[in-house]
Amino acid sequence: MEEGFSRYFYYRENQLFCENIPIKEIASKVGTPFYLYSKQAILDRIDQYKKAFEEYNTLICYAAKANSNLSILKIFEENDLGLDIVSGGELYKAKKAGFPSNKIVYAGVGKTDFELEYAIRENILSFNVESEMEIDVLDELAEKLNKTVRISIRVNPDVDPKTHPYISTGLRKSKFGIDIDEALNVYRKAVKKKNIDVIGIHCHIGSQIMEISPYVEAVEKTAELVFRLKKEGIELQHFDIGGGIGIRYRPEDNPPTPEDLAKAVIPIVRTTGLRLIIEPGRSLIGEAGALITQVVFLKNKGDKHFIIVDSGMNDLLRPAMYNAYHHILSVEKKERKVVADIVGPICETGDFFALDREIDDVQRKDYLAVMSAGAYGSSMSSNYNVRPRAAEVLVSDNSFYLIKEREDYSYITKLEEDAMASLITE
Amino acid sequence: MEEGFSRYFYYRENQLFCENIPIKEIASKVGTPFYLYSKQAILDRIDQYKKAFEEYNTLICYAAKANSNLSILKIFEENDLGLDIVSGGELYKAKKAGFPSNKIVYAGVGKTDFELEYAIRENILSFNVESEMEIDVLDELAEKLNKTVRISIRVNPDVDPKTHPYISTGLRKSKFGIDIDEALNVYRKAVKKKNIDVIGIHCHIGSQIMEISPYVEAVEKTAELVFRLKKEGIELQHFDIGGGIGIRYRPEDNPPTPEDLAKAVIPIVRTTGLRLIIEPGRSLIGEAGALITQVVFLKNKGDKHFIIVDSGMNDLLRPAMYNAYHHILSVEKKERKVVADIVGPICETGDFFALDREIDDVQRKDYLAVMSAGAYGSSMSSNYNVRPRAAEVLVSDNSFYLIKEREDYSYITKLEEDAMASLITE
Repeated sequence: MEEGFSRYFYYRENQLFCENIPIKEIASKVGTPFYLYSKQAILDRIDQYKKAFEEYNTLICYAAKANSNLSILKIFEENDLGLDIVSGGELYKAKKAGFPSNKIVYAGVGKTDFELEYAIRENILSFNVESEMEIDVLDELAEKLNKTVRISIRVNPDVDPKTHPYISTGLRKSKFGIDIDEALNVYRKAVKKKNIDVIGIHCHIGSQIMEISPYVEAVEKTAELVFRLKKEGIELQHFDIGGGIGIRYRPEDNPPTPEDLAKAVIPIVRTTGLRLIIEPGRSLIGEAGALITQVVFLKNKGDKHFIIVDSGMNDLLRPAMYNAYHHILSVEKKERKVVADIVGPICETGDFFALDREIDDVQRKDYLAVMSAGAYGSSMSSNYNVRPRAAEVLVSDNSFYLIKEREDYSYITKLEEDAMASLITE
Repeated sequence: MEEGFSRYFYYRENQLFCENIPIKEIASKVGTPFYLYSKQAILDRIDQYKKAFEEYNTLICYAAKANSNLSILKIFEENDLGLDIVSGGELYKAKKAGFPSNKIVYAGVGKTDFELEYAIRENILSFNVESEMEIDVLDELAEKLNKTVRISIRVNPDVDPKTHPYISTGLRKSKFGIDIDEALNVYRKAVKKKNIDVIGIHCHIGSQIMEISPYVEAVEKTAELVFRLKKEGIELQHFDIGGGIGIRYRPEDNPPTPEDLAKAVIPIVRTTGLRLIIEPGRSLIGEAGALITQVVFLKNKGDKHFIIVDSGMNDLLRPAMYNAYHHILSVEKKERKVVADIVGPICETGDFFALDREIDDVQRKDYLAVMSAGAYGSSMSSNYNVRPRAAEVLVSDNSFYLIKEREDYSYITKLEEDAMASLITE
């Protein structure tokens, strides 16, 4: 493979390319900062998941929370994937992107009445319910709307996924799901509800998981419950094992592949006879994206070298939030290397992309690419420090498309301006 | 004082009031979640700062980054404060709120050419420059625009403010400012620049500072430099000591008052003869605001009790980001207490407001008030999980005003929808 980060982001004659376009060319046209995605990277990853699971009846539901840009969602929809949503807003986007309702599953511990009613009306495939109270409320709302709703119960298998504590979701002490020991009773109650059709079981243990063994443990524990339910005459239709496979943040990372996951879990799920649902998010989009930013200033303080760029924690929160590593490449390769803090313009010391990092000796106006920023990048971005959110660009071969315009000052101020005007005229 | 949190947020007959309105009444009209601000709390705090500093020639510049809602900015503007900005977006808002340019100071390590030119054209009072390169660029851009710009140099006094590392900004290893030992040389160079008028000195050591002694240390060190500059014939006009005074997050907290700060720093600044600039942000708005949220579900898992609310880390990032404590009150007082995790709807374990907190035994549909959320609340909020950002409400006596409408799905999706449409028709 050529030098760079992957076959989608690589150097050709010292220029970093995304597919068949020099990134510098896009940057000079679009301005910075912007998120850049390789369509081929996404398509190849979809293909890899499809091939890995083709031997078994599986619905692959992309986890919209990783990146819900509408044009990104459209790629998954066009390739026949379903969607894993966690809010009414994601349902709104799902419908805009054209996902059929019978491929939408909806998880989340705090679905509001408004959101539940919206999803009931849209007749989604399954509510992945997380508490007894949610089941009661769902039953009442379905009654009111004169509908029947399909649910799966999210069980918490108490498995340690060995990832960042904030994105571990399968431990007993976490807010997610229903303890697997208590789930049998909840199923017994749920099947008696008039407006509820109990069709599945769900577990999801976390995100950015680098080993397969926690999946095996979680799926085995959950399968045991499926058999106990069968004995009681509670027959399910699907077994949703969630998502969470890790990606390469460091060039040397070696996350599990879709094949690894398939080989480990299909034999277990097969014993239940249920249709399999998987919910990959980060592993479908994470490595397909990069954040492109321009060097604003350089400065030295004592023995410390700072590279100050025009993108910050408002664009990409992961380094500040999870102390996450992102590999950073110079868009034009340099001969010399330096050790530097790569920091943003925001007025917090936590606003950094990398600390004490060996990196190409870039100069003012050079561009940097923050790699593996496709997931939990734009989706977590904010307007902190009144910074317009970044543009988003999709590359396909030697063409590129603006899939979200950069926000401008009037757009991000509009709602406050309207309100101030009405306050003054009052 | 009545029970509650402050004279602006207190219980009357078991109902939590903001000034003279029951918060429940606002919630039932506006829906949740929303940020709620007491105008009187802001006015009283402004007054306290003004009185504390009235004995000395002082410009109080509100730090817009804490909360830049236009109607909030307008309150500061109407009360003759100046503004401390950190971006072009904040300058845009400053002008919308009516701040005169001669009361605007602009800090930040990564000002882009676009932002610098914008601020040069607006003829602001002072660029608080943070690097030699910034001075060079500013001189070039001013030359191009045929203007002279006024600058202050931000020096880094290497003082530990004893606060969260992410918001400590005055240590030598941080990206901010110019080391005080190197500043003399930078001043010597800056005064020779054709299009630059060096008028001030700036230091800012951090945020949420609970002791006065670090200020004294920083201001003393910086004053020494002012005297050295004088000896070399470099005469300044103002001495900007930044902001950063802490607020009460826990009822028992006892942060320094504006009077404490004034008494400590005025004597030192007076010896220099320079006009004083201060930049309070959090301490002007933090305690004046609360985040109001509704209980969606309750659940028990083993011995753990969860209160799940309709607001999350996308609305208020501080607990997840800084592990920050926020006091939480029930909007209707309950007799019974429970110990609970108060968590949001977002699909991360990091999405919490409080862990193992003793709190009123609230039920589904009850409201909670997350206190001291006026600063770094709405300003850091995002659309993570495609959640519309919260409404904002200002209370004055027994009236309330919507100062930012709740976002809706079409607003937060608009730019992506436009882009997808153009992609499809292409």
